[in-house]
Amino acid sequence: MSLHGDYDAQNIFAKIIRGEAPCYKLYEDEYVLAFLDLFPQSRGHALVIPKQAAARNLLDIDADSLGRLALATQKVARAVAEELEPAGIQIAQFNGAPAGQTVFHIHFHIVPRYEGQGLGVHAAQKGDEADLKVLQERLAKRLAG
Amino acid sequence: MSLHGDYDAQNIFAKIIRGEAPCYKLYEDEYVLAFLDLFPQSRGHALVIPKQAAARNLLDIDADSLGRLALATQKVARAVAEELEPAGIQIAQFNGAPAGQTVFHIHFHIVPRYEGQGLGVHAAQKGDEADLKVLQERLAKRLAG
Repeated sequence: MSLHGDYDAQNIFAKIIRGEAPCYKLYEDEYVLAFLDLFPQSRGHALVIPKQAAARNLLDIDADSLGRLALATQKVARAVAEELEPAGIQIAQFNGAPAGQTVFHIHFHIVPRYEGQGLGVHAAQKGDEADLKVLQERLAKRLAG
Repeated sequence: MSLHGDYDAQNIFAKIIRGEAPCYKLYEDEYVLAFLDLFPQSRGHALVIPKQAAARNLLDIDADSLGRLALATQKVARAVAEELEPAGIQIAQFNGAPAGQTVFHIHFHIVPRYEGQGLGVHAAQKGDEADLKVLQERLAKRLAG
């Protein structure tokens, strides 16, 4: 049930793509947009979304958009690895509310892991704005370089 | 540190690709191999790996292999959705031991989520062989159809 359904053009990521809602943007091109998660599970938690695909999840996204999304996820993960030097990086992509999906526009999570630090609960606590801004500047610069 | 390093050709997935170790195979083509996780976190937990890329993780895999891997993950996720009708599906890809990676050949996890059921701990408990065999037959048939 929750894996299937119509795409809602009023979801928050669709608004961000259209410029109707703000984000801590890290990278953007014709096909993809990357920005910081407002409720980070760890420092540098980023999201990557397709701009041209009205897709809820992995089941309904077209092949071209998915390929570009995977490559953009790699690009941002590499920047996170270089800039923040985490001990590891978890990539996650949730399909359906029972799997933890809260916004129904497909997105990949890039979650850095640091030695001795657990993860925050998904979508639970808002990040510190000053720190999000610092991270945005560092990662956007790295991605532009 | 654990995000970087040389590829070890003796890892278990490399052995599976070479036919030196068995697996509950779901799908295979020239570029990718999909099989059931022997330590499933939920029923139908599957893995998808590239066959031609000697890549440890998302940071060091080449673009072509990554694109094919993403599409194969979608293909298997669709088959899992159709055949097992889970309430949701989690996709996970771990980079580095501190992020939960236990085999250092890049792989995507496809973890079905069922209503009212939590997840088993990653890589903790071996699945029931008879059930793995049933799932293999059902999913392989679906993927061949």
